[in-house]
Amino acid sequence: MKKINFDHISVNPMPPQVQEAMISAIKENYGNPSSLNASGEQAAEVLENARRQVAGLINCKNVKETIFTSGGTESVNHAIKGIAFANAEKGKHIVTSNIEHSSVIRSIKRLTQLGYKATSVSVNKKGRVNPQDIKKAITDETILVSVMHGNNEIGTIQPIEEIAEITKEKKIPFHSDAVDTVGVIPVDVQKLGVDILSFASNPYCGPTGVGGLYIRRGLNVWAMFDGGIQEKNKRAGTENLIGIIGMGAAAQLATEEMNKRAEHLKSLKKLLISELPSYIDEYIINGDPENSLQNLISVSIQYIEGESILLMLEDEGYIVSTRSACATGSLRASHVLLSIGLKHEDAQGTIVITPGIENTKQDIIGFLKALKKIVNTLRDISPLYKRKE
Amino acid sequence: MKKINFDHISVNPMPPQVQEAMISAIKENYGNPSSLNASGEQAAEVLENARRQVAGLINCKNVKETIFTSGGTESVNHAIKGIAFANAEKGKHIVTSNIEHSSVIRSIKRLTQLGYKATSVSVNKKGRVNPQDIKKAITDETILVSVMHGNNEIGTIQPIEEIAEITKEKKIPFHSDAVDTVGVIPVDVQKLGVDILSFASNPYCGPTGVGGLYIRRGLNVWAMFDGGIQEKNKRAGTENLIGIIGMGAAAQLATEEMNKRAEHLKSLKKLLISELPSYIDEYIINGDPENSLQNLISVSIQYIEGESILLMLEDEGYIVSTRSACATGSLRASHVLLSIGLKHEDAQGTIVITPGIENTKQDIIGFLKALKKIVNTLRDISPLYKRKE
Repeated sequence: MKKINFDHISVNPMPPQVQEAMISAIKENYGNPSSLNASGEQAAEVLENARRQVAGLINCKNVKETIFTSGGTESVNHAIKGIAFANAEKGKHIVTSNIEHSSVIRSIKRLTQLGYKATSVSVNKKGRVNPQDIKKAITDETILVSVMHGNNEIGTIQPIEEIAEITKEKKIPFHSDAVDTVGVIPVDVQKLGVDILSFASNPYCGPTGVGGLYIRRGLNVWAMFDGGIQEKNKRAGTENLIGIIGMGAAAQLATEEMNKRAEHLKSLKKLLISELPSYIDEYIINGDPENSLQNLISVSIQYIEGESILLMLEDEGYIVSTRSACATGSLRASHVLLSIGLKHEDAQGTIVITPGIENTKQDIIGFLKALKKIVNTLRDISPLYKRKE
Repeated sequence: MKKINFDHISVNPMPPQVQEAMISAIKENYGNPSSLNASGEQAAEVLENARRQVAGLINCKNVKETIFTSGGTESVNHAIKGIAFANAEKGKHIVTSNIEHSSVIRSIKRLTQLGYKATSVSVNKKGRVNPQDIKKAITDETILVSVMHGNNEIGTIQPIEEIAEITKEKKIPFHSDAVDTVGVIPVDVQKLGVDILSFASNPYCGPTGVGGLYIRRGLNVWAMFDGGIQEKNKRAGTENLIGIIGMGAAAQLATEEMNKRAEHLKSLKKLLISELPSYIDEYIINGDPENSLQNLISVSIQYIEGESILLMLEDEGYIVSTRSACATGSLRASHVLLSIGLKHEDAQGTIVITPGIENTKQDIIGFLKALKKIVNTLRDISPLYKRKE
C-alpha cells in the first residue's frame, strides 16, 4: 500500500530538481574548494553559487555572513556555545524560552555544566513568548538571548522582530533557531533583526545533514570547528559539497515556489481544521491560529494515546508523528505541550500532522475518515473515556 | 587538456560504485532514521548497514563505538574538546606532537583560551615521534594524548601502538587523528590500542563532508552537538544519510581493494623515487622510508619555490599540491617541514605528490619529464641557485 505522508516535519522528500543537482554534482567529482588548482577553483565557484542561493532565501545581503554547516543542530550548537564562549568575560547568563527545540535546550544545559546560568521564559496558551518577559529576564550578566522562530511541535511563530528591538537596545546578541521557518515562510534576517540565525536544508526539501548559519558581521562568536580556513575561517573542515549543492538548488526552488507552496499548504490546513468537527469531537487544536506555520497542525485528541493513533493510522496508510523526530524514544510528555498548559493526558493524546507540497485535498479527507474510525475504536477501549462518561 | 591528478590528498574522485550508491540513495528519498514509522525504520536499517561497513574498515567489533560526523575536522574537534571538557576536573594538560594537522593544533589552541595547557613533543628528522618523549611529557594533570597516525604532508606513520602502551599504563585517554590512514593502510583500533580515533570518508574515495569517530566504550567524552538522541546519543542532529551511504560503500570497496590499491600505489611511489635522480638533482625526499604512506611523496626541490613549480606543472597538465588544502592561503612555511629540521628555503621549495588509484606508470614518467623541464627553467632564474654556483 502506498502510504500518504503527513510527517514532513521529520523529513521532506527532495523534488526532482534537487535530486538532479546532487546527481550531477556526484558525477562531476568536484575538486576541493580550498585547492589552488583549476579543479579547486571550479569547486569554489560551485560552492559560492550555492551560498548565494541560500543567502538569497534569508535576504542576507552580504553573502559572507552565511556559512554552511552539517544541519540545524550544528548551527544551533555553534550559535549558542560559540556566543557563550566568546562572551564569557562579559557574563554567563542566557535568556531563552520554554518551548525551544532539544538542540537549544541541551546546548544551554551543557553550558550550565561550565558555570553558565539560564532563564527560560514562559509562553502563553498559544505558545507565544511575550517580548516584555524577555526584557524582564535580561540582567547585566546576560550575553545571549535565544528564541526560536517557528515551533516544530505546535507551529507557533514568535514575535522575533519585537524581541530584536529589545536585544538591540540592550546590546545583547540574539539567536533565533529558524530551522522550521527558513524556506517555509518568508524569513528576512534584516527585517527580523537577529544577530545569528540557525537553519537547515531539509525543511524546504533539500537533503538532510546540511544546514546554514547566518552570522551578522562583527558578531563575537567562537567557531565550533577549529582547523582549516574554510567558510571564511568560521567553520573549519572540507565541505559536504554534494549536500551543499542540493541545499542551494532547494533554496532556489523554495524562493521561486514559496508563495505557491504556502497557498497550497494553507488550503490543506484550513480544510483539515474546518472539516475536523464533522469527523471527531473532544479535541484541542494547539498553537496560535494567527501566528502559525501553514504546514503543521497539532491536535490533542482527548482520552486516547497519540502513539496508538500513530500506529493505527499507519495501518490505514497515513503517516503522522507525535512529536519531534529528535525526541523520539522519549516517553515523557512533550515539554512544548506542557508549557502551553495542556494537561498531561491531553499532551499524550497529541498527533502532529505536517502535510507536504505533494499532498492533496483528497488525502486530507481520506485521512479524516481513517482518523474517525481509529478514534472511535480507541475510545471504545479507553478507560479514561469510559470514566468520563 | 586532460590533467593528470597527483593531488589526491586534497580530494579523491569517487569510484562508480560509490557514486551509484549515493545516486540510488538520492532517488530513494529515505525517511528520517529517528522516525518510528516504516520509512524511518528502513532509513535506520540503511544507516546501520553503513555503520557496519565503516566499523569493519577499522576492525571496530562493537559497531556502536563508531559514529558518523561531518568529516575529519569535526571528529578531531569532538575528540579533543570533548575529552578536555569531560575530564577538566582531573586536569587541564594535553600532550601532542609538533606535526599535527591544523584541526588538532587549533582545537588545542582554542582550549588554551579556556585555561588548558599543552606540551607539544618534537619529532626526529624523519617526522617520527619518540614514544618515550610522550611518556616524559605526561604529568599528573594530563587528561589527553593526541598523536596523529599518518602525516598528511610527509606521510610518516607514527608508532601509535607503543604510545598506546604508555597511555594505557598511565590511564590517559589517547586520541589519534587517522584521517590520512583509515581506508588507505590497514587500521585496526583493537591493535592500535587507541581510545578514540578520527577519520574521514574522502581519503578512501568516499564523499567529502562526512567522517567517523571511533569512541571506545566507556570513554568519558562530551558530545560536540547536543540535541536529539541520534548516533547513540553521542552526536545530535539528523544524519547526512546520502553522504553516509557513500561513505559506507567506499568503506566496503576499500576493505576489498586495499591490498590491490596499496600494491599499485607502492609501485608508483617506488618508480617515482627511483627514477627521480635521472631527472633532477639537489632535492630532499621528506619523511620516513620505513614508515610511510604509500600514496604520498614529499619532495623539497632546492633553490626554487614550490608554488612556482605547482603553477608551472599545472600548465604542463599535472596537478600537485604544496601542502594541506586546509592550510591553503597561508604564506608561512609548513610547520611540519620546519619540525623535521628543513631549512626555511627548502620548506618553501616543497611539493607534495599524492598519486591515486587511477594513475599509471606512464603518468609518473610524464610527470618526471615535465618536472625536469620546470626545475631547469626555475633554477635558471633563481638567485639562490646562482649564488650557490
